[in-house]
Amino acid sequence: MSMLITGIHELVTCDETLDGAVEEELHARLGLLRDAAVVIAGGGEDSAPVVEWVGPASQAPAADWAIDLEGRAVIPGFVDSHSHLVFAGDRSAEFAARMSGTPYDGGGIATTVAATRGADDAELRTLIQHRVQEMRAQGTTTVEIKSGYGLSVADEVRALRLAREVTEETTYLGAHVVPPDHRDGGEAGRAAYLDLVCGEMLEACAPHARWIDVFCEPASPYAFTGEESRRILEAGRAAGLELRVHGNQLSEGPGVQLAVELGAASVDHCTFLTDADVDALAGSDTVATLLPGVEFSTRQPYPDARRLLGAGVDVAIATDCNPGTCYSSSMPLMVALAVREMGMTPAEALRGATVVAAKALRRNDIGTIAVGRRADLAVVDAPSWLHIPYRVGVPLVRALEV
Amino acid sequence: MSMLITGIHELVTCDETLDGAVEEELHARLGLLRDAAVVIAGGGEDSAPVVEWVGPASQAPAADWAIDLEGRAVIPGFVDSHSHLVFAGDRSAEFAARMSGTPYDGGGIATTVAATRGADDAELRTLIQHRVQEMRAQGTTTVEIKSGYGLSVADEVRALRLAREVTEETTYLGAHVVPPDHRDGGEAGRAAYLDLVCGEMLEACAPHARWIDVFCEPASPYAFTGEESRRILEAGRAAGLELRVHGNQLSEGPGVQLAVELGAASVDHCTFLTDADVDALAGSDTVATLLPGVEFSTRQPYPDARRLLGAGVDVAIATDCNPGTCYSSSMPLMVALAVREMGMTPAEALRGATVVAAKALRRNDIGTIAVGRRADLAVVDAPSWLHIPYRVGVPLVRALEV
Ligand SMILES: [Zn+2]
Ligand SMILES: [Zn+2]
Repeated sequence: MSMLITGIHELVTCDETLDGAVEEELHARLGLLRDAAVVIAGGGEDSAPVVEWVGPASQAPAADWAIDLEGRAVIPGFVDSHSHLVFAGDRSAEFAARMSGTPYDGGGIATTVAATRGADDAELRTLIQHRVQEMRAQGTTTVEIKSGYGLSVADEVRALRLAREVTEETTYLGAHVVPPDHRDGGEAGRAAYLDLVCGEMLEACAPHARWIDVFCEPASPYAFTGEESRRILEAGRAAGLELRVHGNQLSEGPGVQLAVELGAASVDHCTFLTDADVDALAGSDTVATLLPGVEFSTRQPYPDARRLLGAGVDVAIATDCNPGTCYSSSMPLMVALAVREMGMTPAEALRGATVVAAKALRRNDIGTIAVGRRADLAVVDAPSWLHIPYRVGVPLVRALEV
Repeated sequence: MSMLITGIHELVTCDETLDGAVEEELHARLGLLRDAAVVIAGGGEDSAPVVEWVGPASQAPAADWAIDLEGRAVIPGFVDSHSHLVFAGDRSAEFAARMSGTPYDGGGIATTVAATRGADDAELRTLIQHRVQEMRAQGTTTVEIKSGYGLSVADEVRALRLAREVTEETTYLGAHVVPPDHRDGGEAGRAAYLDLVCGEMLEACAPHARWIDVFCEPASPYAFTGEESRRILEAGRAAGLELRVHGNQLSEGPGVQLAVELGAASVDHCTFLTDADVDALAGSDTVATLLPGVEFSTRQPYPDARRLLGAGVDVAIATDCNPGTCYSSSMPLMVALAVREMGMTPAEALRGATVVAAKALRRNDIGTIAVGRRADLAVVDAPSWLHIPYRVGVPLVRALEV
């Protein structure tokens, strides 16, 4: 079965071999086609539909079915390469207090860990599915999901098992923070938790995860130092996991250079960078993934995307969707924030949310619209993809259901 | 016919007589009820449904129909007291160029005037209806709509006639800018346009409008000075229109003090204020309406809401939805920006988008959920209204269709 999608006023393919079809700086490197069509096919029991044909509407081949998008724009489905969707509980009051400058001790991450541990599988599954649906309704067709609110062997395994039900991109983040139940023991408690993360917990989690991640941040007492992070990542790699890193969120720390040295697919946050960090990224295959929703929701300074782009670094953007520092699942908002607050051009931001984000997951079957790739398309309810940042806040983008 | 709305985990009434039911600073002045119900009734040919009963779900009376919101939050529908929805054309490329720092001369407002004049009634009607529906889908139940892209007698009348098809809150804004076709004549062209705005155009437009507005901004060559603005507003009042003002957007100008002196319902923008401006507002019945989407979309500094609130000024927020400086129709985003960028607490921002915005339209039948008021309710797809700023960008709010 094949389907012809026509009536596409602007088609963003992110396929650079098509560049030049529209000679406009605003659309640089987007492989933009005007008045285009796409044919997709397949999608049986075990395989996702793929793109069979891309080109001008006037040359489109016949197909079994056809849908007419009536002049809308189409982009590759967003790739949200950084999220923490497996959690229960509500921390909206903590957010409100922080924004109002009023004191509040709701317990922070400990609240989420307790609520997540206390939820049964069915509750957690419902919450995860709801969040993934909410993302699809905003155009996200691939989402990476981390564990990290279980922080015990059983709870981390459960988080990854439930995440795996909705995505292949699961990430073991036992090294999110030293959990509350290991903080009283001082250095001994911390060391015991590190042993657990690199030992029994890793062994139990590895079969359910593709990636391992660590919150490398010496400035935070319950996050991990460079040496601890190295040990965790190396243990993960030995267990067959690929690497990603939370780095340089709160201070100029060792995260970026460690990620580059170990060949991580992505280092995420990158808010505080030295020149050496930028140089290391520029000479590497590691993507810098920026998470502007975090700076929005915590009123922190935004990372400097222009500095990275100017040095030739691959810059992706993602939501970091999580209950503490950014409970937004909106990739369209991240595109708008990247443009408004981080100096990215709209085209750079859109690439960062699609094809560069796919690189941050070491995937080449998503993030572009090209023959043989997955048919993960998103429709913009506007004639131009530029309306995504232009019409900030308006729910214009949705995943195309085929 | 009556309908019982139940399953409301948090009901924001904005009815201060209910304050104290929930003693939490986060919800100050919101008249918050937990586990509440609302009964609405009426809504025949010529009358909108009204609220018949508000209270705890356990005490709710019977009704002909019932709907269960399953633990969601309910707020008064948003009141967007400032928009420019009557236009045609597309200026997304201008936005993108501005944000990218690349030169672009697309013609600015002249483009919109030309496209709007060139559209036929059916096209414009479709565009307006689409935008109003988009707003309802984001929780806005009342919208003020200005003319101002016609700038000829016939085109301004048409804009107001079409706007009146979708709202009672229509505003004559012939004094948006001196139009391109009156700019070549120098002072004579400008004077001729002023005569038109205060004479024939006003006479033709007044039957279709409730309000008159003026873009008072001496810093802009095609906007209006204090003395010009006074003449326009006084002519409008003589023609039976009520007053609102665009003031102090780009500089410390005379707009705010003129609005207060003439008893305007609202002065909008208020980005650049002297202490005397703040004092004048504080001693008046004029609302200060802030439009943070404009600062977002133009990368200008945000107005200082805290300074106004601290002085006791009523502060509303609105979208200013327009193709040039903010093409967002999202009141939930404006709430989030008010919190993140202007120092409003979430409760102040929500009041600014509902009950205070109703005051900016001199309406007391909307903006609150109370017996006898219009049944304009919006549902938040979350247990708490706090999720509106907390979950920035996520389309959680929709108008309740009854
Ligand atoms: Zn994260
Ligand atoms: Zn305006």
